[in-house]
Amino acid sequence: MAPIATQTTSELTDTAIKHAIIKTAPSITTNGASTHLSELDASRIIFTRNQNPRAVPEPNSPEVWAQNVCTDHMITCQWTSTDGWGPPHLKPYGPLTLMPTASVLHYATECFEGMKIYRGYDSKLRIFRPDRNCCRMLKSATRIALPAFDPKELQKLIETFVAVDGEKWLPKSRPGSFLYMRPTMIANDDHLGVQRPKAALLYIVACCFPSLDTGIGNLAPTVNGSDEKQKTGLKLLASKEDTVRAWPGGFGFAKVGANYGPALIAQDEARARGFHQVLWLLGKECDVTEAGASNFFVVWRTREGRVQLVTAPLGDKIILDGVTRRSVIELAKERLAENIEVVERKYTMYEIEEAVEQGRLLEAFGAGTAYFIAPVSLIHFRGKDLEIQTAAGSSGKYTLLLKTWLNNIMYGLEQHEWGVVVQERQLDA
Amino acid sequence: MAPIATQTTSELTDTAIKHAIIKTAPSITTNGASTHLSELDASRIIFTRNQNPRAVPEPNSPEVWAQNVCTDHMITCQWTSTDGWGPPHLKPYGPLTLMPTASVLHYATECFEGMKIYRGYDSKLRIFRPDRNCCRMLKSATRIALPAFDPKELQKLIETFVAVDGEKWLPKSRPGSFLYMRPTMIANDDHLGVQRPKAALLYIVACCFPSLDTGIGNLAPTVNGSDEKQKTGLKLLASKEDTVRAWPGGFGFAKVGANYGPALIAQDEARARGFHQVLWLLGKECDVTEAGASNFFVVWRTREGRVQLVTAPLGDKIILDGVTRRSVIELAKERLAENIEVVERKYTMYEIEEAVEQGRLLEAFGAGTAYFIAPVSLIHFRGKDLEIQTAAGSSGKYTLLLKTWLNNIMYGLEQHEWGVVVQERQLDA
Repeated sequence: MAPIATQTTSELTDTAIKHAIIKTAPSITTNGASTHLSELDASRIIFTRNQNPRAVPEPNSPEVWAQNVCTDHMITCQWTSTDGWGPPHLKPYGPLTLMPTASVLHYATECFEGMKIYRGYDSKLRIFRPDRNCCRMLKSATRIALPAFDPKELQKLIETFVAVDGEKWLPKSRPGSFLYMRPTMIANDDHLGVQRPKAALLYIVACCFPSLDTGIGNLAPTVNGSDEKQKTGLKLLASKEDTVRAWPGGFGFAKVGANYGPALIAQDEARARGFHQVLWLLGKECDVTEAGASNFFVVWRTREGRVQLVTAPLGDKIILDGVTRRSVIELAKERLAENIEVVERKYTMYEIEEAVEQGRLLEAFGAGTAYFIAPVSLIHFRGKDLEIQTAAGSSGKYTLLLKTWLNNIMYGLEQHEWGVVVQERQLDA
Repeated sequence: MAPIATQTTSELTDTAIKHAIIKTAPSITTNGASTHLSELDASRIIFTRNQNPRAVPEPNSPEVWAQNVCTDHMITCQWTSTDGWGPPHLKPYGPLTLMPTASVLHYATECFEGMKIYRGYDSKLRIFRPDRNCCRMLKSATRIALPAFDPKELQKLIETFVAVDGEKWLPKSRPGSFLYMRPTMIANDDHLGVQRPKAALLYIVACCFPSLDTGIGNLAPTVNGSDEKQKTGLKLLASKEDTVRAWPGGFGFAKVGANYGPALIAQDEARARGFHQVLWLLGKECDVTEAGASNFFVVWRTREGRVQLVTAPLGDKIILDGVTRRSVIELAKERLAENIEVVERKYTMYEIEEAVEQGRLLEAFGAGTAYFIAPVSLIHFRGKDLEIQTAAGSSGKYTLLLKTWLNNIMYGLEQHEWGVVVQERQLDA
């Protein structure tokens, strides 16, 4: 068969994604396509109650810091290329069985979402903008050759999971606490050929997680084993050209495993040198991209005197479309329009350096689900420590405002459509 | 603790790797470091014989094409950050148990090697340059935050595995046949924190695999489901800037999962358009890097009339240091020095285009373990089909010579140090 010369390679990846969605989740397309394969359907869920539930650990106990205590249940759902999506199953949390040849173990055919479940000060359970996470999970899954699904069905599964495990694991006696939730998809077929997977497992688990954003003090134990409290914010080590997180034409925008594992050793070495995270730069111009596994923002005064909140744009598909990032931008535009200008554009480390040296760099912070809003106090760039002049022990003014607003929405101190309340639910014995 | 300002971020990744090797495999360093942790030690192996062995499928049967029939045994070896490497265990092939929070399922903390086990025409079992694979596995493991080990110990484990499963699975009645072997390492600790893994599993499995290099005819079924025999070589679709496999400062040189999963959808779309593989270009200059998951070579006549064998260099760490690639280069230098010049340098798609148009492009081929030496007949680049003038149904002259020499070494038709003979071994019942 001759190649079809009239087609070009333009947007090879985008076209592949469109074709995959038509095959595996035509209901979310607008072209009327259909499939004989079952689509993801939350209403088909089967429940199997955990008969050996475990105890909930104390907040910030060593068990919580180990980040490996999961709740009593998980939801799993198997997909195959021959049958489509099977029925979801809520069942006792426990090990997965994978053949040694499973695609995910060789080719990183995996993606995930990071979310939190919040116990509000009004005693209600909430999740934050789950629609955004579910849409992004679809983007990540299709980018990494995993099957498509209707994001609304994933959201229903997430809400079911939260409803069942939320009551016990976020007791009403602990308002202001949270669990970390991890919707995940992996390719679990057992073919060693380098090819699109023919089987995949979607699952949702949640585990106890420490607060990583409270004054950064809790991060200290991971820095050279020191346990001294650091109240001065994150210290970042700017990367050089020999270590790149993501690149144009790559997959930095997607929450796929391939963006995380390769960054671990640089992060580890940065910590050994006394920094909390790597500030990932890109290219000769030293474009600022992300900080660790979080988005990165600065607040500066321009030479002309305007105050701007600046972060890297999504256009090049290098930057993760963070839910916290998006929320910071939207809140700032809505509530701080008279004070600051919100700018999504490419900006460089040299601009930050100049702003610091001229006293125009007002604030900097990382923004993500795990670290939430984490003030940055120092960036080490090419032999220089650039200190960001926020008073020790406190966030900058806008950083604190944005963090407070988000926190209030998450914990029900402010009623807002982003804070989605989930009704708790008891499983029959 | 203040950052150590005298240190820079230069070679952050390289330094991290050195530190990790000192911690987990000091015996392979020259600085006299030692550890209280156990290092990988093949002599500690424990044997558990498979009491329910399965039948060996016929060559090129549908079972073989499914690429999921594994041999009777596997070797596993667990590492933890507290104890180091445990005893290796040769045991019945079977599923692995992983917690849903296992690092490998989220952060692509995984690497592997692709090798073959050959049944020679002299009835001997061979593996090809296993020392090269074991050294590369160390590079891949340390790049992806997995523990280090002495490559010689890994080679001993590989040879033990081959010795036990080789006799039955590559019967002497089938000289010229092979198995595909996959040494793999995955992070199997159950911490959701984005951090260096604290537990890892090394394992070795082998499965029946079809011949992917015989006239390319066998590739046809994967192209639009057509089963017509294609004898004219691989057809490649050159990538555009919107789809990039690897990047300077990234990890293209390492055999880590993160290099494979992200490329699957472009490959899938290329196949849907009638091509076998993507020819991965990089940057505005369209540097030629790899073809599919193989290295890529061209033979051309320069404008000055010299015949050159050209492939991309390893210096930028974008290109996989392929064992087949290395062997092709070494054989060509040794045996074809009077005929061709061997050149490792950056070269561009425009140079290939010009050479094709001027009739100077003599041969092109992919080189890797799975596809072996696979002649290329066509490259589609920006709307043009560039045809490579090898007679239909045959390889180019040098391609065929190199392939024959390698084949002879692998199957014992030529005695050579690269073909490492493994003595077969019966496990006690």
